[in-house]
Amino acid sequence: MAVGLSAELPPLLAVNGVRWGVAEAAIKRPGRKDVALMEICEGATTAAVYTRNAFCAAPVHIARRHGAASAPRYLLINSGNANAGTGEPGMLAAEQSCRAVAAVTGCDAGAVLPFSTGVIGVVLPVAKIEAALPQAVAALDVEGWHAAAHAIMTTDTVPKGISRQVMVAGRAVTITGIAKGSGMIRPDMATMLAYVATDAAVPRDLLQGLLSASADRSFNAVTVDGDTSTNDACVLVATGKSGVRFDSVDAEGYAGFAQAVLEVCQYLAQAMIRDGEGATKFITIDVRGGVSEDECRQVAYTVAHSPLVKTALFASDPNWGRILAAVGRAGVVSMDVSKIDIYLGDVQIVHAGGCDSAYTEAAGQAVMNQAEITIRIELGRGDAVAQVWTCDFSYDYVKINAEYRT
Amino acid sequence: MAVGLSAELPPLLAVNGVRWGVAEAAIKRPGRKDVALMEICEGATTAAVYTRNAFCAAPVHIARRHGAASAPRYLLINSGNANAGTGEPGMLAAEQSCRAVAAVTGCDAGAVLPFSTGVIGVVLPVAKIEAALPQAVAALDVEGWHAAAHAIMTTDTVPKGISRQVMVAGRAVTITGIAKGSGMIRPDMATMLAYVATDAAVPRDLLQGLLSASADRSFNAVTVDGDTSTNDACVLVATGKSGVRFDSVDAEGYAGFAQAVLEVCQYLAQAMIRDGEGATKFITIDVRGGVSEDECRQVAYTVAHSPLVKTALFASDPNWGRILAAVGRAGVVSMDVSKIDIYLGDVQIVHAGGCDSAYTEAAGQAVMNQAEITIRIELGRGDAVAQVWTCDFSYDYVKINAEYRT
Repeated sequence: MAVGLSAELPPLLAVNGVRWGVAEAAIKRPGRKDVALMEICEGATTAAVYTRNAFCAAPVHIARRHGAASAPRYLLINSGNANAGTGEPGMLAAEQSCRAVAAVTGCDAGAVLPFSTGVIGVVLPVAKIEAALPQAVAALDVEGWHAAAHAIMTTDTVPKGISRQVMVAGRAVTITGIAKGSGMIRPDMATMLAYVATDAAVPRDLLQGLLSASADRSFNAVTVDGDTSTNDACVLVATGKSGVRFDSVDAEGYAGFAQAVLEVCQYLAQAMIRDGEGATKFITIDVRGGVSEDECRQVAYTVAHSPLVKTALFASDPNWGRILAAVGRAGVVSMDVSKIDIYLGDVQIVHAGGCDSAYTEAAGQAVMNQAEITIRIELGRGDAVAQVWTCDFSYDYVKINAEYRT
Repeated sequence: MAVGLSAELPPLLAVNGVRWGVAEAAIKRPGRKDVALMEICEGATTAAVYTRNAFCAAPVHIARRHGAASAPRYLLINSGNANAGTGEPGMLAAEQSCRAVAAVTGCDAGAVLPFSTGVIGVVLPVAKIEAALPQAVAALDVEGWHAAAHAIMTTDTVPKGISRQVMVAGRAVTITGIAKGSGMIRPDMATMLAYVATDAAVPRDLLQGLLSASADRSFNAVTVDGDTSTNDACVLVATGKSGVRFDSVDAEGYAGFAQAVLEVCQYLAQAMIRDGEGATKFITIDVRGGVSEDECRQVAYTVAHSPLVKTALFASDPNWGRILAAVGRAGVVSMDVSKIDIYLGDVQIVHAGGCDSAYTEAAGQAVMNQAEITIRIELGRGDAVAQVWTCDFSYDYVKINAEYRT
């Protein structure tokens, strides 16, 4: 069960200029809609960030190439097959899926970005997608966000989506996003995919900068298991249909708009962690007082990836020695442990590198019993900060990942 | 149950110049010998390597300081309490334990190196050790290796020890080592400790170089969970009592001797992995064709730490996509995936970056069903190689680490 997430989506606001249609292609098995098509109006700008995994999947190669060459008009997403590790046949299948969208909609194949999530190592069954596409096109609707949020799910236990509105010079600007992912990666049946759209007008370079900066503080700041998918992708579309235009970071209302985009990305990224494989707790690792943000991240990720810290969190065990040991091995150059303070929620557990004299096991236990826990680490070296979100490590994580294919 | 390790120690050969005595101090609970004392003859040389964790424990600070200042005559090891994260009181307790050995044996307190393993965050109960020391001194015996191997255990399921002999100019040189550790770290009740002795004479600088080089290819090349203990230590003692002396790496017989020391270290390091927390499989990650050894290690550790790879190994699931994804995210600069080959045992799973055309699930499954598995990754970039040893990730790992304190 997802930590602090409802099984129902919140209301998702339509974004003028964007329509979604879904269809059943029965890629893995029949019985559910597993193809989603996003139609983007002419004149919109689109930004995207992709996995940094060297073994990135065929659709990632094609989406990156198409997105660089022309303005995307359609995003084609399938669940049930990742089309990763599939070599040249996988590339041909991904290209063919774009041509199929072009044939049904009349756009150029280069204006289609393909995305796949599901089993690795099996070439995309493109004929099934071709057969389902007319149904998806017929279903295109500005209210299609809910259906799309469901269609892109794999083993997610709940759909994930959110909307925000900001007012700019008396006009409403809407931002809506959906995502899927139940871990940073599950090469069988996972991948993080996120689609965010706004009706503001934003030039492409500015939009890409906004997405990259937002992703660094959201999708790139969460981890379930430290593994990075071969298929991860996040797309931000700006249709301009609200009549509000931002031409630079100094434009009126841009700061509030950028903050709302960041909040949408953070909500979606955190929703994936809340729905992380086997997760029973939602953990914020908040590192402060570093010399650089990179250094703070390094400490945060070392704690967030420690199987010993994660199993202690699962057990609600205030085993602060494990946190301390993880901080100590994070590889920070010339770390002075005598300057380090660590807090579990509001309870100080480490003071000046040793156990705080006022700390009691009962106080630590009270924090550990909660479903949402913040671990704050003060390095005492500088002014930089970083946050990382993660979940605990439970029997169900092993069960899900050990038994998935059987 | 440890993978491929007998519950009984192999014969451990005495090393002339070294005696072990054990005693019951009831540090954690009564009923077992939990203190071991190694006596080292005058004129011996000693080398040591310690944890790189910034939060290293009080005994590590003291052992490092004493070892740098004078030739050690006694090693004092206790299980049941790590004396880590204990601040100034912990330092005072560790120093007092050395004075206690000095009082009973007549040596200088600075000639005693203290080592602790067990629960973190609790100051060493030094009075219990003082009370038990006369018993340990009375028990000192050249045949005490077996008793010591048992006394230093915490949650290890089997004791770990090995002997090797090499002939040098007609004389036998003996090397015997013992170790404890059931993971690279378990801050509650773990830590890697290893003690190796030889009756060869080796100048201290040469001995330290030999130990450092051997540790890099043994203790520093194993991982259960990527966590590094606050108390890890390995000590190599050379007594010279065999009459064989090595004054430089070019000395007659030195290469064979160094190889035997490496083999002892590798045996002990691998024994810890075979007895790793919840381990059901022993895995060798063999990375070849890198530009540098560091790069090969980086890839090997990324695969060895991947919870997805480790849970697949537990499930005997030939889920090669997880290995491929881990290699892809290892952070190797300008990795050309089209040059990468991956083998599971003798079965090629990836050829030139994609699934090998001759690969069958049945062939992969046959390898995965084995208890000892080698994953070989050929990077196709250069001539460097590196090996890392690890174990799988099972329900019992979560159970051991989630339920340990309850």
